[in-house]
Amino acid sequence: MNDVGAHLGGARRAVFLPFARADHAEYAALMAERMEHIDVTMVSAHAAPVPAVAVEESDAILVGGGNTFRLLRALRQYALLDVIRARVAAGVPYFGASAGSNVACPTIRTTNDMPIVETRTFDALNLVPFQINPHYVDPPPPELRAGETRVERLREFLEENDVTVIGLREPSWVVVKDDRMTLHGAGGAVLFQRGREPESLSSGSDVSALLAAPARFDRAG
Amino acid sequence: MNDVGAHLGGARRAVFLPFARADHAEYAALMAERMEHIDVTMVSAHAAPVPAVAVEESDAILVGGGNTFRLLRALRQYALLDVIRARVAAGVPYFGASAGSNVACPTIRTTNDMPIVETRTFDALNLVPFQINPHYVDPPPPELRAGETRVERLREFLEENDVTVIGLREPSWVVVKDDRMTLHGAGGAVLFQRGREPESLSSGSDVSALLAAPARFDRAG
Repeated sequence: MNDVGAHLGGARRAVFLPFARADHAEYAALMAERMEHIDVTMVSAHAAPVPAVAVEESDAILVGGGNTFRLLRALRQYALLDVIRARVAAGVPYFGASAGSNVACPTIRTTNDMPIVETRTFDALNLVPFQINPHYVDPPPPELRAGETRVERLREFLEENDVTVIGLREPSWVVVKDDRMTLHGAGGAVLFQRGREPESLSSGSDVSALLAAPARFDRAG
Repeated sequence: MNDVGAHLGGARRAVFLPFARADHAEYAALMAERMEHIDVTMVSAHAAPVPAVAVEESDAILVGGGNTFRLLRALRQYALLDVIRARVAAGVPYFGASAGSNVACPTIRTTNDMPIVETRTFDALNLVPFQINPHYVDPPPPELRAGETRVERLREFLEENDVTVIGLREPSWVVVKDDRMTLHGAGGAVLFQRGREPESLSSGSDVSALLAAPARFDRAG
């Protein structure tokens, strides 16, 4: 979490969004514990009278993992999408783990999660113009496969959408700072683009080009 | 495929729905090859002037696998949901593989697939009152995990929905005939219900009780 501390910079009041999990209070307590060594006051949006106001009054936004559909539904129900976008546009740091990284993308179309609740649309925060596939795993040996591999699932995504996807192996993450984006963590990543072979990326790679990648989503519904 | 032949009974003209895959013609050719030993004429809905009419004129319905969201979107775009329901209610046999089994359920909320395209709603054919999780896999050893296990994903589903789920390991399938349902195949299955421990089921099990199971889906969107 030292990298998280660095990313949050001099933030004084961080808001945490625990909505990807069912038990918000438990998740908020866990996150508060993990954040203890960082000198920042953490408020959990589930306990705020109006979650959107809590986001508005914070200078850092932390979005936890769990189920991406449940998270996106909550962001919409609590009218958080626009206020998060506005805060991030104003320079407030955003930290997203797992489902929290999925919703930072234009859509949640590259989540691994089960669609356990309705979300009306898969459109999400659009803080970056590409898609993240978190917990990326390379194809297992054929005898261990059941159903499609992750590569096959992402190929299906690219059949329908002409959008760059970065598959983040564990542990790895990207840091966006102004016009630059860098890949961090020992896991490395794999880049997926329509019509190209998947490309391996190692920790430390400059992936700033993705911030200018064109994205053409299938829009039929 | 001998069990498929038995399930189709004396059908003379089967309609195949290839919409879960991107290449309909290729998939239809593959399916025709697999069906060669069964004495039935197969028409692929993608090549029919009006897919709904092709379904209407058939006495067996075969739905192939691929991406469940792409399949459900096509069923809605081609106005196939009501006509399939009507045919099945009239006694026409339905065979669904993978995504084709997901759409037979009340919703596609227990698919493993990526939400690569919009579907408007996850509501599906509702031919049975429970949910199927195809390609079910038991949790791998912790050192091989990345992201949530299937059990954890199904637990998240049950947090939001009070609906029975049958996780079908490979190879396994269920056959519904009148008021009876039986589990087939060497893989066996696992039954998931809210507030209960997962229950293992072996091939040959009578699972007719699931046909009367109450289903309470979360309806917020």
